[in-house]
Amino acid sequence: MRVLVVLVWTVLAYSKCDEYDEQRARILALESRLALGGNTSLSAAESRLNDCLMRHKLHELDYGYLHPEHYNFSQHFFKYKDAIPQSKVYRIIKAMPKGAVLHVHDMSVLGPDYMLNITYMEHLYVCFGERIQFRFSIKMPNISCDGHWQLMKDARKASKNLTEFDAMIRDQFTLVVENPDVVYPSINETWTRFGRYFSSIYYLIAYRPVWEQYTYDALTALRNENVMYAELRSSLQTLHELDGTTHDKLTTAKTYKKVINQFVKDHPDFCGAKIIYAPPRSENRQAVASNIQFLRETRKKVPDLFIGFDLVGREDMGYPLLEFVPVLKKVTDVNFFFHAGETNWYGSGTDENLIDAVLLGAKRLGHAYALLKHPAVVREVQARGVALEVNVVSNAVLSLVRDVRNHPLSEFLAAGLPVVLSSDDPGAWEADPLSDDWYVAFTGVASRHADLRMLKTLALNSLKYSALEPPEKQQVLEDFHVRWNHFVDHFDCSSY
Amino acid sequence: MRVLVVLVWTVLAYSKCDEYDEQRARILALESRLALGGNTSLSAAESRLNDCLMRHKLHELDYGYLHPEHYNFSQHFFKYKDAIPQSKVYRIIKAMPKGAVLHVHDMSVLGPDYMLNITYMEHLYVCFGERIQFRFSIKMPNISCDGHWQLMKDARKASKNLTEFDAMIRDQFTLVVENPDVVYPSINETWTRFGRYFSSIYYLIAYRPVWEQYTYDALTALRNENVMYAELRSSLQTLHELDGTTHDKLTTAKTYKKVINQFVKDHPDFCGAKIIYAPPRSENRQAVASNIQFLRETRKKVPDLFIGFDLVGREDMGYPLLEFVPVLKKVTDVNFFFHAGETNWYGSGTDENLIDAVLLGAKRLGHAYALLKHPAVVREVQARGVALEVNVVSNAVLSLVRDVRNHPLSEFLAAGLPVVLSSDDPGAWEADPLSDDWYVAFTGVASRHADLRMLKTLALNSLKYSALEPPEKQQVLEDFHVRWNHFVDHFDCSSY
Repeated sequence: MRVLVVLVWTVLAYSKCDEYDEQRARILALESRLALGGNTSLSAAESRLNDCLMRHKLHELDYGYLHPEHYNFSQHFFKYKDAIPQSKVYRIIKAMPKGAVLHVHDMSVLGPDYMLNITYMEHLYVCFGERIQFRFSIKMPNISCDGHWQLMKDARKASKNLTEFDAMIRDQFTLVVENPDVVYPSINETWTRFGRYFSSIYYLIAYRPVWEQYTYDALTALRNENVMYAELRSSLQTLHELDGTTHDKLTTAKTYKKVINQFVKDHPDFCGAKIIYAPPRSENRQAVASNIQFLRETRKKVPDLFIGFDLVGREDMGYPLLEFVPVLKKVTDVNFFFHAGETNWYGSGTDENLIDAVLLGAKRLGHAYALLKHPAVVREVQARGVALEVNVVSNAVLSLVRDVRNHPLSEFLAAGLPVVLSSDDPGAWEADPLSDDWYVAFTGVASRHADLRMLKTLALNSLKYSALEPPEKQQVLEDFHVRWNHFVDHFDCSSY
Repeated sequence: MRVLVVLVWTVLAYSKCDEYDEQRARILALESRLALGGNTSLSAAESRLNDCLMRHKLHELDYGYLHPEHYNFSQHFFKYKDAIPQSKVYRIIKAMPKGAVLHVHDMSVLGPDYMLNITYMEHLYVCFGERIQFRFSIKMPNISCDGHWQLMKDARKASKNLTEFDAMIRDQFTLVVENPDVVYPSINETWTRFGRYFSSIYYLIAYRPVWEQYTYDALTALRNENVMYAELRSSLQTLHELDGTTHDKLTTAKTYKKVINQFVKDHPDFCGAKIIYAPPRSENRQAVASNIQFLRETRKKVPDLFIGFDLVGREDMGYPLLEFVPVLKKVTDVNFFFHAGETNWYGSGTDENLIDAVLLGAKRLGHAYALLKHPAVVREVQARGVALEVNVVSNAVLSLVRDVRNHPLSEFLAAGLPVVLSSDDPGAWEADPLSDDWYVAFTGVASRHADLRMLKTLALNSLKYSALEPPEKQQVLEDFHVRWNHFVDHFDCSSY
């Protein structure tokens, strides 16, 4: 009898043990399946790559877990960006085919070193006033400035210390500083400096030949990241010639088409680039209506270039989308890719851009940072298959979040929402055109368990949610798989 | 014919307009209903109070929206805590009946001024070594220290500058500093200082008469916040007498019962306090088993005091719950209130405490900060009716999040998850025992639209999810409604 009792007790205890372990395993399995990439399976070769990738990732995380004072991702991006290239995880990601870039602004792909080089070109004038102005011109610019115009090469020659002079000039083209917590105590200081950045580079690249070269070199930089396709947001800035002749926006569009065609011809492995016309959100309702009309006319004149429309500028401070709804809701022939929810102001008009962007039928949402504060919008996003263009480094640099582990991307990934990773304005913070964002997202934001399946899914998402037409998309996806398999098959863990 | 076309066009355009507005209104209404408090309706008197409350809230938010550089909540709590009392929203919240406090540690309810006062008591010895040690004793303590023991009053008398001396002593009892970003560059420095805080106060309140007075005064502080009931986490520290006699933990439990009974007798409007026995998570599996056994025995000897069990200490660094599952899953006669998910390490063992806490049947989760990274656990939490004990100021001070608008509480509230607000260790960061947390959550974290319905629901949640037995709970809820209605009926907007 006693033996029987012990036996029954043991069986019961054991089955309870089993039950707990089973429930736990079920939850973990469900979370793994729900997460982005959870339904992807890996080939034998992919699994070998994954083993290498995850060994390095866990090593980085374990070190940070034990030594949080040396863990980079809890700090400001500027504090650890220079250490990133030492990461083996980063180096693998850098070499990996990453599909497309779907959220990047055309004026800020390239960094301050590139811009500094431009200031060494002939015929550049500079005016040192309250801010520094540049202008390419065959003669002294006839433009008011609160200093006086001089040739840049004369100013450079007259400088006492060339290194310091160039550092001062370069500083105009970057938000990077050594002490970001002091320089950027609030989002306002960050955006003020961001505004200075744009006004500094604007006229440097407004000179048509520079603009053409810049655009070509921006595509080169993206291709060097193992990106095969790009959708650039552009306000189509007006270009000018040395003699002061100013072109209209149509010329910018045509020039885009010319440069992209040339680039694809020179690099047949690059599938091309398209433009989202994105004028400022600070303009009024009538301006938005005429911008839409301009897009309609221009895309007829320059076919196969434009894929849609957005409004840009600091979302918190411009008009909310609601202001433009009377105009935009009547538009049925233009695809929308609205910035929405790039804010911490829960319940504000800006925050509600998420609602209007979705109701206006946006194909993708730019940032969607505040999305999870809107469970009803999450449902719409899922039902309508709207992709989320997440730019994690941008959100950190532009003062939305400090420790990227608090970025909602972790929750987007956990819920398997349709995320595409992008870089927004990487040149402005001296980040890679895409790899830094992938690295920070993979190692800093995603689960410790997130692996190659997530990365592959992110790459596939960037093509799936692109605005390519079905036959083009199919071709690009096939090209991607060829490239991906080549990368996987030739992967050698020891070379990273 | 032309008139007809125009007419049809107008009707179509108008109906499309209607449709958009309706869809938008439907989403807003759904989000309002889903949010915490969304199903509460307000009486006429409550609506009047709400009008006043929201006028002041929107004024604060509008100012911050236009002047983010002056918006406090994006800063470290220490940068704005002294400005809080000027807020009219805060003053209304302070006066409001708030129900219960369900997550507060017994040793850290009262702040540094209170502790400094204790150092003026007779028979206190101090040793200035690498750290400062205190001990109440009738004679020189026979305890090793890396300085020498002297009477505190002699040390104070010998100090050249009493103000500086007292400031130095007071500094031991607080984490507050003027330059938190410099002093706390990572979570490690914060927890090191938090450890010093506990070791400094430990022996000051280990002297039985001080402990009794401290506990009585802590209850007074909670009652002064318009709290009517408390569930305190306690490790039941051992108490001693002046002659060095040391009591066991059973004595601490009995003393608790005595002090609480006395307090309720003195303040019949206070419904009492209960204890969650919460020894450290740094102990091993056998220790946890014997702590559970100790709880079983002690609650027989001291009835109506203990409501359950938890494990405390820095969750990132102690054992994960999984280590104790073999012991804890066999326990069916003890309620669990586990700390879980007080971490930014997504996918780590600590992070998975959320899974084990829920599977072990926890009635509430302490912090649950990382919950939304676990959609499968969210489902369990909803299905099982597990409450979330959110301590927003604590999470900000203890280096999980900087700008509280990134605290997941905003998403918990949006989803209507069963939140109770609490304060964790308010004395350690010189916060109110509850009002600061309510104020930060309401004005800083929740939606701009969140109003009195949310606050009332938070108060009701704190009673609903308390461990009170059904008849007691019913009585306390009735008492709460009497108090709430009294507050609402006598509310005068002009007096705030």
